[in-house]
Amino acid sequence: MAASAILRPQDPATMRGHDARLACRSGAIHGTTGGIAPGYVQGNLAVFPTALADDFRRFAARNPKSCPVIGESAPGARTIPELGLDLDIATDVPGYRVWRDGVVAEERTEVADLWRDDLVAFVIGCSYSFEAAMAEDGLPLRHVEMGVRVPMYRTSIPCAPAGPFAGPMVVSMRPLKPAQAIRAVEITARFPAVHGAPVHLGFPEMIGIADLARPDYGDPVRISADEIPVFWACGVTPQSIIAAMRPAFAITHAPGCMLITDRLNAEFAV
Amino acid sequence: MAASAILRPQDPATMRGHDARLACRSGAIHGTTGGIAPGYVQGNLAVFPTALADDFRRFAARNPKSCPVIGESAPGARTIPELGLDLDIATDVPGYRVWRDGVVAEERTEVADLWRDDLVAFVIGCSYSFEAAMAEDGLPLRHVEMGVRVPMYRTSIPCAPAGPFAGPMVVSMRPLKPAQAIRAVEITARFPAVHGAPVHLGFPEMIGIADLARPDYGDPVRISADEIPVFWACGVTPQSIIAAMRPAFAITHAPGCMLITDRLNAEFAV
Repeated sequence: MAASAILRPQDPATMRGHDARLACRSGAIHGTTGGIAPGYVQGNLAVFPTALADDFRRFAARNPKSCPVIGESAPGARTIPELGLDLDIATDVPGYRVWRDGVVAEERTEVADLWRDDLVAFVIGCSYSFEAAMAEDGLPLRHVEMGVRVPMYRTSIPCAPAGPFAGPMVVSMRPLKPAQAIRAVEITARFPAVHGAPVHLGFPEMIGIADLARPDYGDPVRISADEIPVFWACGVTPQSIIAAMRPAFAITHAPGCMLITDRLNAEFAV
Repeated sequence: MAASAILRPQDPATMRGHDARLACRSGAIHGTTGGIAPGYVQGNLAVFPTALADDFRRFAARNPKSCPVIGESAPGARTIPELGLDLDIATDVPGYRVWRDGVVAEERTEVADLWRDDLVAFVIGCSYSFEAAMAEDGLPLRHVEMGVRVPMYRTSIPCAPAGPFAGPMVVSMRPLKPAQAIRAVEITARFPAVHGAPVHLGFPEMIGIADLARPDYGDPVRISADEIPVFWACGVTPQSIIAAMRPAFAITHAPGCMLITDRLNAEFAV
């Protein structure tokens, strides 16, 4: 028994955060991190040269619903000890995007060889945390039921600008019955560090979304006649901003492929 | 200066709860108590003979969103010290309804001569408390802007029954823009003792309301094209139940004419 338990690969759905992060680092886990290491905080990644990092820090502070920063590296460092003692920002995310002049030049599984002394990494809270709280309360998550990525949309809601960082908020959408939507507001409001309460519900056109069936990121999901679309600020917002402002160089996670931390979702509830 | 200040009648909008209650008792204040003694908890009233009071207590416990009991008298007592040391349930409400066999037999300004040794008074939290919190947050209250009573509707949402107490939930409605509706959920969720978060938003027909322009209680209000109706459980629910179950005798407040207590709204926030 003991020997077979040692040899059997760990189930990602029961892994602790640290084990899951090491599995991402080794390549044993690749692709989306949804459903992996339940209970542990996962994060969006945005990496900028020092020259832009101060502006991004101000941008994030001015847009706490879309860019709630939960960790930041020192310039050049690949560590963020408060998120995991041995965390390596350049190897532990299962999918990276390397941006050059505002376009995705490469998708990779590690960026150690691209690391520079002037890079600053920001980790931004992710909706996987509040989705866990919603699921525990019995609320449906349509994209999880359908086995697809959550649909995300660029909106007409402007972010508060800071230096060259300016552009629209990206939102994720989950369809819910009205009473469920109210409950979801109550639950997600307890998690301001991971996007908090929704920013809109009901009328996509009021926030500049022309067609729910055609998300800008992720996959479309089914909406029933008795459901309304509920929209949360999304940690993909920086990627939309990068595409608009076209910095020479930036690194982000690939949508859905998050940094798994050692912190517990419960620690982030107010 | 001092003499004229003594002689000038107090402004209801700056009164403390105790002074306002004494003014209701004396008849100096009559009609709606909306906007009077801001910051102090007001309550709905429901009075039943002992034979029914146990069932009503269970009914209220099973329906905490529509019937959040914040005070109860001992049988025959006209006092509820936790709501106000000198409070007199039979004289301090500015408008009473006396119900006989399920219909309003009389509306009165005091019921001292009707009081009986077997009567139990229940005071139920009122939306005036959460409306104060909404207004402090800058959210609009259309019925206040229009100077009318909040519109209230009988719904198809069943209350959980207890003994003879059974029937539909009554809700109050406030129109809000979607982002304001989300904020209103966050704010009112902090006040579970005064109805808490909404029970529905968006689609009146889903909860059995055929026409928002024809409320069952109160007055209709204007809804703009960019607003959605948001519905909260309402302390008028017991009156709808009384009309359905037809008890031989009951006393309630007249809608809008609340019992003003010495407790502060802030004490009821979680």
